[in-house]
Amino acid sequence: MTKPLRIAIAGLGTVGGGVVKALQARGDELAERAGRRLDIVAVSAKNRRKPRAFILPAAWSEDPVALASADADVVVELIGGEDGPARALVEAALASGKHVVTANKALLARHGARLAALAEERGLALKFEAAVAGGIPIVKALRESLVAHGIASVRGILNGTCNFILTNMERTGRSFADVLKEAQQLGYAEADPTLDVGGADTAHKLALLASLAFGTAPDLDHMPVEGIEHITPEDIGYAREFGFRIKLLGIAKRMGADIDQRVQPAMVRAGTPLGDVDGAFNAVAADAGEAGPFFFEGRGAGEGPTASAVIADLVDIARGSVGPAFGKPAGTLTPLRSAPPGAASSAWYLRFEVLDVPGVLAEIAGHLAESRVSIESMLQRGRNPGEPVSIVMITHDTPQAAVTHVLKAIATSDKVLGRPRLIPMEAG
Amino acid sequence: MTKPLRIAIAGLGTVGGGVVKALQARGDELAERAGRRLDIVAVSAKNRRKPRAFILPAAWSEDPVALASADADVVVELIGGEDGPARALVEAALASGKHVVTANKALLARHGARLAALAEERGLALKFEAAVAGGIPIVKALRESLVAHGIASVRGILNGTCNFILTNMERTGRSFADVLKEAQQLGYAEADPTLDVGGADTAHKLALLASLAFGTAPDLDHMPVEGIEHITPEDIGYAREFGFRIKLLGIAKRMGADIDQRVQPAMVRAGTPLGDVDGAFNAVAADAGEAGPFFFEGRGAGEGPTASAVIADLVDIARGSVGPAFGKPAGTLTPLRSAPPGAASSAWYLRFEVLDVPGVLAEIAGHLAESRVSIESMLQRGRNPGEPVSIVMITHDTPQAAVTHVLKAIATSDKVLGRPRLIPMEAG
Repeated sequence: MTKPLRIAIAGLGTVGGGVVKALQARGDELAERAGRRLDIVAVSAKNRRKPRAFILPAAWSEDPVALASADADVVVELIGGEDGPARALVEAALASGKHVVTANKALLARHGARLAALAEERGLALKFEAAVAGGIPIVKALRESLVAHGIASVRGILNGTCNFILTNMERTGRSFADVLKEAQQLGYAEADPTLDVGGADTAHKLALLASLAFGTAPDLDHMPVEGIEHITPEDIGYAREFGFRIKLLGIAKRMGADIDQRVQPAMVRAGTPLGDVDGAFNAVAADAGEAGPFFFEGRGAGEGPTASAVIADLVDIARGSVGPAFGKPAGTLTPLRSAPPGAASSAWYLRFEVLDVPGVLAEIAGHLAESRVSIESMLQRGRNPGEPVSIVMITHDTPQAAVTHVLKAIATSDKVLGRPRLIPMEAG
Repeated sequence: MTKPLRIAIAGLGTVGGGVVKALQARGDELAERAGRRLDIVAVSAKNRRKPRAFILPAAWSEDPVALASADADVVVELIGGEDGPARALVEAALASGKHVVTANKALLARHGARLAALAEERGLALKFEAAVAGGIPIVKALRESLVAHGIASVRGILNGTCNFILTNMERTGRSFADVLKEAQQLGYAEADPTLDVGGADTAHKLALLASLAFGTAPDLDHMPVEGIEHITPEDIGYAREFGFRIKLLGIAKRMGADIDQRVQPAMVRAGTPLGDVDGAFNAVAADAGEAGPFFFEGRGAGEGPTASAVIADLVDIARGSVGPAFGKPAGTLTPLRSAPPGAASSAWYLRFEVLDVPGVLAEIAGHLAESRVSIESMLQRGRNPGEPVSIVMITHDTPQAAVTHVLKAIATSDKVLGRPRLIPMEAG
């Protein structure tokens, strides 16, 4: 058998601990699959004395960046953050001839093309299965499997915290704030949940999927991002009445030579694969042209799934698989040509908070007709003379620009209260 | 760029034609992803003169086996059949130092371990993504991605024809024979549908998945196989009333050191991922222990999906990925230790055709109680004194041996007509 693959791990939190445990528990089996042993030779983490569920396997280093000069073949970066020690370690490791495995979506979404070039120049692997959708092997699938016909679109539920919150809002009828608090108590949401519920985490992951799917450099600058903070039980209730569920989606679609990529809560029909993804699960739907639609679902986070992804990358490297990080040589990744804002077309869910006075519906309908936005279905429930009621509409397929334009006009009416709610309908 | 990968293709039917077309249409893109060009240098098919939607790309050979001595790096075997020219070609190609890509599930289910050993001895690839579930990259996922924690079970809807027929029986209420005839007219079923509807095709695919999942040699000899020919609209109707759908599943589960593998129609709850797979789609659910459950869905057959899988294998080979065919060295694949027949435990759907006379339910219930088979729910509809009626029951979790034993006793009653119907309930 070939020499062992010598591994240095920076970060021994949930994921790092899971990697150590799995390598210790199934070393022989993995050696058979990898063609050689996977040996941990150096580790680094904040607190050496913290009680852990495993025996520290190797040389300890205070400074994660020092792992770049460890006597190792691969550095596993599990520190996180788009700059700081994570970036310093990855750059130093590649510069000193070490393969890199990372779960760091922020780092790669921001600096991926440059780091991929750095790795390629030196014939090194830069692998990141764990950065997107936990244990679901979607990075490998887009990089190596769904390549024959090109990808038309990739859409995913990429943040388990958001999906947990939305699923629980739907189940209990409670508010976003309430359910978030509960999720934090259960450990499903961070103390500072902004990165999750604000959509940035989904954006990082989507940038990587779009790059793999379309051969473009990861691009966070051309990506509108909307989180789930403003989703109300009312919208979730209306969605259900129309047979839909609200999901936070990362969406990337080819539109001619342009790419439309965005993070956005969307209405997805219940009973479809994406629409039925529950709780903390993640899922990705990819349209691979003539190869047809594909759907992948699994756990998006946590020790087991994420460690599984890291170890798959390590086995790949042990076997000598050192292809380009994003599936194509870094030099051939094209800058992302962003679709013009508002060009994306879909059906839309509109909700207006209006005063229950005569003429309000006529006024709204008039504006919509004038802008040629046609309505597929409408719902107004209850009467509350002189007080606010909701009017809910679902449009036919309409470009976003047309809808936002007419909503601005409607919002100026003194019978319409606050900003109308606008949520796209997406295929599931 | 490295030298082109020289490809010889045996078989230019739907799949072979799809491979040629995709390589011709997207050659430059694929060359970037593969790190070198993918060039077709030789082909073989039955009829040279048949009109085709592409220009014959290369040297023609009457004899497929002659491709083994073509000036090529890889032979793509798309002839089919577990012996005959397909096997002769694969053996000859490996013997003469050529990598092999094949869509031939029958060949590999029967001779896989030996052919894998042959390939390994010579440092050659033997790849078969197209043999299971069309374009779904489940072979690669089991071989390379879900390796860290071991697989507890893999269950799949692996035959699109069967799923098309079952879905249409459910939708229309029509009989198996009727819907099969329609499927044949639409080209969804072969003129001789035995391999599909009898379950053998699913068995071939399951044997490969079980091998990849459990590190065992593919084994068709220890696999009970039941098809869908005996599924009636009545059973489908009752399934729906209980919230289930009938699916033909390939099931392989670890039971201690044993493997329980079988092909069987099963009741799967509607609203679950497997339960909601419609029409000609395929899907695989894998339980990867701590990495959690995974679910993969896509088109299981047809030109685009199958060509996509073949081309993914070719790109892998072009990049130098030549790992063992079943994920572990052929010498380490263990013989499959089959779980004792009847050991598998599940809830069961039972349907008795009985004469509507006093005492029949008491008699059935007595037998069940005696054998400690407990009933979760029961349904008897309508009255038809002196004539047949159906009694439908769903049991609690019971070993198969216990259920089949008691059914034999019940079937001897002169109030019970024909053989009772027995269908396991499976998680979705």
